[in-house]
Amino acid sequence: MAELPSEEEVNLRANEKSKRRKAARDKMLATKTVEKGLLIVHTGKGKGKSTAAFGLVTRAIGNDMRVGVVQFVKGKWETGERHVLEKFPDQVEIRTMGEGFTWDTQDRARDIAAAKAAWEVSKEMIEASRGPEPKYDMVLLDELNIVLRYDYLPLDEVIGFLKAKPEDLHLIVTGRNAKPELIDIADLVTEMTAIKHPFREQNVKAQKGIEF
Amino acid sequence: MAELPSEEEVNLRANEKSKRRKAARDKMLATKTVEKGLLIVHTGKGKGKSTAAFGLVTRAIGNDMRVGVVQFVKGKWETGERHVLEKFPDQVEIRTMGEGFTWDTQDRARDIAAAKAAWEVSKEMIEASRGPEPKYDMVLLDELNIVLRYDYLPLDEVIGFLKAKPEDLHLIVTGRNAKPELIDIADLVTEMTAIKHPFREQNVKAQKGIEF
Repeated sequence: MAELPSEEEVNLRANEKSKRRKAARDKMLATKTVEKGLLIVHTGKGKGKSTAAFGLVTRAIGNDMRVGVVQFVKGKWETGERHVLEKFPDQVEIRTMGEGFTWDTQDRARDIAAAKAAWEVSKEMIEASRGPEPKYDMVLLDELNIVLRYDYLPLDEVIGFLKAKPEDLHLIVTGRNAKPELIDIADLVTEMTAIKHPFREQNVKAQKGIEF
Repeated sequence: MAELPSEEEVNLRANEKSKRRKAARDKMLATKTVEKGLLIVHTGKGKGKSTAAFGLVTRAIGNDMRVGVVQFVKGKWETGERHVLEKFPDQVEIRTMGEGFTWDTQDRARDIAAAKAAWEVSKEMIEASRGPEPKYDMVLLDELNIVLRYDYLPLDEVIGFLKAKPEDLHLIVTGRNAKPELIDIADLVTEMTAIKHPFREQNVKAQKGIEF
């Protein structure tokens, strides 16, 4: 029977392997030279779509960038987020445009009007990020996917406009059920999938610091 | 041929449907009364695991909560995040313990030592959140999954300790390849799946405000 390798031998082999891996990785990274504003989509039924977008917004602020946020759904970003972002009034502008989820308003005509108003503001922010003195480096259209899903906005117009965004602008779109047409034109798409959720399984309610 | 319904009729039907949906939702939410600290896991190969955790940390800070962060991998949370979190020195404590990815250190013995040191700090933070005067309301163990995957820490001990966390503490664990044993004891698990990634497809490099 062969003897088991000593811890020293295990380490040696692991280190050799990791040296080869690093060489391969360095070679791969050397080909990544493109810089451009990304069209980023967070979708899926799991949590973390808006939270990760908020993380990106905050990270960008920490990097002295300027950020515009349009909320297509009311009532989010209300408490925790606001207290933090208020510390950086010169760098972040939040426009709360949604009148609430369809669930709450129960008024389709009002929802459509709110979606249209939010889209007008979105277009303004995106256009203002063009040219030699862009107003924002990042724009977040939070929950835009929801109003697209309900056909509250003309999809073709939205896709065409987002596709023609200023080259350097990072644009983030969140919300479940992202349209395939949006995924087609996006640079980076992440799907958040719920593997386990305490609401459903444990009757846990929305809690401070987690949900809001 | 039947006439198409008017916009008014479409709205009326949609509003009726949304009224019923809201009633069902309110009834469901009324059953959600449990408050407890959650064990949250962000895993999967997609982006947004640490970014969403950072979003939760920042949201918690905005809610006057106190947060401890242990970084099992060096070099993250270095720039953007730090500038923001430094504005809240009384609320957040970050312990950077990792000596770097295995790729970079190529020294398994040192990686294991770093993982053990980070785990000791993690245990201290979690224990300090027990009792009538908990030190933290939220603890983030960023990239713990990676060192568990490489078996740098005894899985049984880690799982046993996390399972016995203080009841009110929100505990977040990030990193791809979460162990099934961790998913078993977690309250909320989200998998971030990469649908599209600009590194691979467009040779886009890591950029300020997005990757760091």
